Amino acid sequence: MTTTRSLLDIDDLTNEEIDALFTRAREFARRPAPRSLEGVFCGNLFFEQSTRTHVSFQCAQMLLSGNVINLTPAQLSLATKGERLDDTAVTLRALGIEVLVARHPRAGAVAELAAAFDGCTVNAGDGTNAHPTQALLDTFTLGDILGDLRGARIAFVGDIRHSRVAHSSMRLLQRYGATVVGVGPECFLARADVPPEVEILRDFDGVLGDIDALVMLRVQRERFESMPIDDGAYIAAYQLDDERLARIGARTPILHPGPYNRGMEIVESVLRDARWHYRDQVSNGVLVRAALLHHLVHGW
Amino acid sequence: MTTTRSLLDIDDLTNEEIDALFTRAREFARRPAPRSLEGVFCGNLFFEQSTRTHVSFQCAQMLLSGNVINLTPAQLSLATKGERLDDTAVTLRALGIEVLVARHPRAGAVAELAAAFDGCTVNAGDGTNAHPTQALLDTFTLGDILGDLRGARIAFVGDIRHSRVAHSSMRLLQRYGATVVGVGPECFLARADVPPEVEILRDFDGVLGDIDALVMLRVQRERFESMPIDDGAYIAAYQLDDERLARIGARTPILHPGPYNRGMEIVESVLRDARWHYRDQVSNGVLVRAALLHHLVHGW
Amino acid sequence: MTTTRSLLDIDDLTNEEIDALFTRAREFARRPAPRSLEGVFCGNLFFEQSTRTHVSFQCAQMLLSGNVINLTPAQLSLATKGERLDDTAVTLRALGIEVLVARHPRAGAVAELAAAFDGCTVNAGDGTNAHPTQALLDTFTLGDILGDLRGARIAFVGDIRHSRVAHSSMRLLQRYGATVVGVGPECFLARADVPPEVEILRDFDGVLGDIDALVMLRVQRERFESMPIDDGAYIAAYQLDDERLARIGARTPILHPGPYNRGMEIVESVLRDARWHYRDQVSNGVLVRAALLHHLVHGW
Repeated sequence: MTTTRSLLDIDDLTNEEIDALFTRAREFARRPAPRSLEGVFCGNLFFEQSTRTHVSFQCAQMLLSGNVINLTPAQLSLATKGERLDDTAVTLRALGIEVLVARHPRAGAVAELAAAFDGCTVNAGDGTNAHPTQALLDTFTLGDILGDLRGARIAFVGDIRHSRVAHSSMRLLQRYGATVVGVGPECFLARADVPPEVEILRDFDGVLGDIDALVMLRVQRERFESMPIDDGAYIAAYQLDDERLARIGARTPILHPGPYNRGMEIVESVLRDARWHYRDQVSNGVLVRAALLHHLVHGW
Repeated sequence: MTTTRSLLDIDDLTNEEIDALFTRAREFARRPAPRSLEGVFCGNLFFEQSTRTHVSFQCAQMLLSGNVINLTPAQLSLATKGERLDDTAVTLRALGIEVLVARHPRAGAVAELAAAFDGCTVNAGDGTNAHPTQALLDTFTLGDILGDLRGARIAFVGDIRHSRVAHSSMRLLQRYGATVVGVGPECFLARADVPPEVEILRDFDGVLGDIDALVMLRVQRERFESMPIDDGAYIAAYQLDDERLARIGARTPILHPGPYNRGMEIVESVLRDARWHYRDQVSNGVLVRAALLHHLVHGW
Repeated sequence: MTTTRSLLDIDDLTNEEIDALFTRAREFARRPAPRSLEGVFCGNLFFEQSTRTHVSFQCAQMLLSGNVINLTPAQLSLATKGERLDDTAVTLRALGIEVLVARHPRAGAVAELAAAFDGCTVNAGDGTNAHPTQALLDTFTLGDILGDLRGARIAFVGDIRHSRVAHSSMRLLQRYGATVVGVGPECFLARADVPPEVEILRDFDGVLGDIDALVMLRVQRERFESMPIDDGAYIAAYQLDDERLARIGARTPILHPGPYNRGMEIVESVLRDARWHYRDQVSNGVLVRAALLHHLVHGW
């Protein structure tokens, strides 16, 4: 049993720990799940809103019978005005909260909370920095579909620069032996935006026939002032449209962290395609997060 | 057992189903209620706020030991920016939510959610269109008080045009054999505003001695730009004041969907009158909604 | 068994009731707590936001397995527009809520809710008036540390005028036999701001060696237009800094209702001092509130 009690970055977990976590997630898929968070107070501190991730953590906590305390942006903006993050963390811990799930628009903010919290802290996304539970669910989902990730060639397409999803998921997939390719325009994908081993390509059409999985990313308009590339040019070069859909493998899975924008990075027909695994990602997210919380609280 | 799994409009349920639901609601009044929503994730998606209805559904879900996930306007405005309603529904279903209770300011929006949701969807009010659980609780409450609704003459008074309550409740009361009368000024009540069998009257004073129940409606100021009738004129003609209160039957029940405005559609003394059944409506609302969720999830 | 069913002001409880409550709180510290709020609907109605107090009540309710319904400012501003407080209370009671915990920016507003509610109402702070559960947790915490409060000399320092905490806590500590001293500038502390028996001092340095406990208060900037005293002057005269910290007793406890502002009423090193009991206050707050709810619902 290790002493890993927080997850701020995907590198906080070893592959062995992640394997144990994935095994547990598969167990949870067969209900009834254990009441392993009974009596455990779980605080969800979302300084930045997110239906998907926030509800996913709530479901994971309730699945294991935890006590759920939600603090959302509207409440936090009023309630913590002038209070430092570390002081908020100290207070929440003293209130009896043992598990703190936090999202914040600033990179590093969740680490500040964790340093003061003295319990289990989970980073649910900090700015453009990290989103480690998304990496877990992406890797879990792709592993389920592809069987083995070793040697699999996986392309991330789009606005990689502003995507904490891409940063965390790319690293974990590489650790599991996958070859990760980044595809996007210069303005969304430079050398510094990805781990060193990631191959950078500008030509989406050129990789379509040569990949085992595709992760489409949303243009994160909320992270920059004005769109650095013309919408039409972006769509022409990087949208997954019917023509490109016809050119990828007949069983090549397509993932997306959501929310997706029809007409921008994908066309509507993608949503009806058997290769579109968005729903699996979302469902697996609950299981993987429940498994994570179970292990952070009870050990590995 | 039928396969009715959603309630968008009161016509989605047969009278037989509603009878079964009312029987169940009476059972739930004797605690302890069954844990029939244990392990069931219930998502309450309120794009428009409502203390009364939102809390009523939460209480109904908790009464049956369901897992309650709330998404309120402040969260939704931030979180679903740019995401289509049907995509939000797909995501919530994939997260494990089985029961979706939704309110939206636009008529038809809840039907869009339901079409994509693939679970149990309950319309908690969509614009001025429908509010079927209010119809259920009104009919349940009036049935309890009057014994039999067949032949009962029930008057709805006030702003019928902007009231989804009136639309749903009138239809259901008619299905149970009641004679429904609409009373209000032209600007709040035209032929197109009510089902064909509803009699339209302009003179409130003329019906006071000749009704078995009275449903007072709030002027829905949030649904129009400026008041189409002078407040004073409205009060003079349609307020339930002491004089009118003295003229209705000694046991004629008075209902109101709430929130009520003292000094507008009713005077303060109405609240202390034994014929004022607002509290029964509210209490019955929890029981009726619990019974509905029980049947939608477990069948009839 | 008395019939005390609400707590609006600390004087609503006798010392005997408070002793029983403190005994119960100590029992709750040894888990598992009883499921004494199982099936009880607890409504938290916060017209003014507060992480600390709101979460504390939620934790207390969940500790005893209560059903928690939260209504926060964002929801309430939209949802109760135009509805009177007493009508909101009637509705919540009819919905099945038995315990109502309320905070409101206006003094007296919680009493209005309570008058209409017909259940257990707890004042979680009304304007600058009262905050009786803070008084309970302060007195519980100081009693735990000092053993006996009789004859103890306890100084409240800072913005006493705008602090509902000070008002409630001072009165209760006096009832338990403590000698309470108020320390602050004229603009934050006049004769009318404190109970008659409270000694008023302007010189913080003069009392440092002569007190058994110190309660530092935050300057409540949200309660006045402009700071009536220069920040520098305030800090020079009333900040608990390293020099003053060195002059108080080696075991003299320092309390603070939170949120605290480093660099204003305290310096950072206070937070690392063994005499700083803020975390105990917060933890005790959950236990004391759970004990209170237990007794209000089940009797004394």
